[in-house]
Amino acid sequence: MGLVWLNITTSLDGFVAGPNDDVERLHEWLFAGDIVVRQGGGEFHLRTEADAKNFREMLSRTGAVVMGKRTFDLGSEPWGDDPPFPAPCFVVTHEARPTVKKGKTSFTFVTGGLERAIELAKDAAGAKDVQVMGGASTAQQAISSGLLDEIELHVVPLILGEGKRLFPDGTPVQLEQTQIVPSIGVTHTRYRVVKSS
Amino acid sequence: MGLVWLNITTSLDGFVAGPNDDVERLHEWLFAGDIVVRQGGGEFHLRTEADAKNFREMLSRTGAVVMGKRTFDLGSEPWGDDPPFPAPCFVVTHEARPTVKKGKTSFTFVTGGLERAIELAKDAAGAKDVQVMGGASTAQQAISSGLLDEIELHVVPLILGEGKRLFPDGTPVQLEQTQIVPSIGVTHTRYRVVKSS
Repeated sequence: MGLVWLNITTSLDGFVAGPNDDVERLHEWLFAGDIVVRQGGGEFHLRTEADAKNFREMLSRTGAVVMGKRTFDLGSEPWGDDPPFPAPCFVVTHEARPTVKKGKTSFTFVTGGLERAIELAKDAAGAKDVQVMGGASTAQQAISSGLLDEIELHVVPLILGEGKRLFPDGTPVQLEQTQIVPSIGVTHTRYRVVKSS
Repeated sequence: MGLVWLNITTSLDGFVAGPNDDVERLHEWLFAGDIVVRQGGGEFHLRTEADAKNFREMLSRTGAVVMGKRTFDLGSEPWGDDPPFPAPCFVVTHEARPTVKKGKTSFTFVTGGLERAIELAKDAAGAKDVQVMGGASTAQQAISSGLLDEIELHVVPLILGEGKRLFPDGTPVQLEQTQIVPSIGVTHTRYRVVKSS
């Protein structure tokens, strides 16, 4: 059985989106470089070998993806007919609708909450890992839920001052720092969630 | 003329103190190891050579220290008669009182606000740097003020969920990542503040 891991880009002050859901500067590390990595119909342009290595690892370990409905809505247009996901996606939503198949992936709409979405994603992922990719509300729920095994943050040197916060209020979590990889304009960090049980 | 730099330990979710001003787990990296560094009457116990190198650099570059009144009040007792500061300290306060000399340092109480305290500290520091050491309110003001040249964060793998926040709301700041040094249970990070002028 694989791990459940949150994989998200954040500003130094803990925002995963600026005002009006703006992520352009936060996600610049994925699109502003010369090293091309393709996935589905998507093309990513990384700046450094460290970024590319991290990105390829993400692709190869992902057995299923969990996302919020807002992320799905915001992403649908840019992702197009061949979305850049290496595995089936599970969308946490209040509205039941049939699974959509697109390119090499599929989007299954889960009305039973985040926990149920993670459960279904685990089944789909087999031995690979479940990537919880956000947005902010899904990330906050995931951190609070105790269901994460790992938190991976791509920390961008920006203080945004406003936007969508990554960390939920009121839920302390003990972590173990497992990987810190500096790059240009971003640091890739991984933390294991220390479970008290 | 030296730099003005914020030097502070923060949780991953951006708290520089937990509930009730608790900093025990945040500052553990300074006290839980075997590598002893002395300054004034203070004794620090670092875990790794990376921590010790960072700490010694801090001591040698500091020409003056700026702190808030609450930090001074909370520190006075543990710091004792020979406080662990390598340079004169300037305390931002509302209450005028005479300078206190203690051990190798002194505490000058500045009623003209943070900007005035930094001005006096710059004069005292000469070619060395001015360290703004917090607490939270002073750190927030310093980030908002535009007076910082550098932000140094010692990031501890904890999600506290509540406490005193490091980052002020509503003030975007553009940074350049200049140093990321992972250690055990802490990562030392430095960012240059990109000034638009």
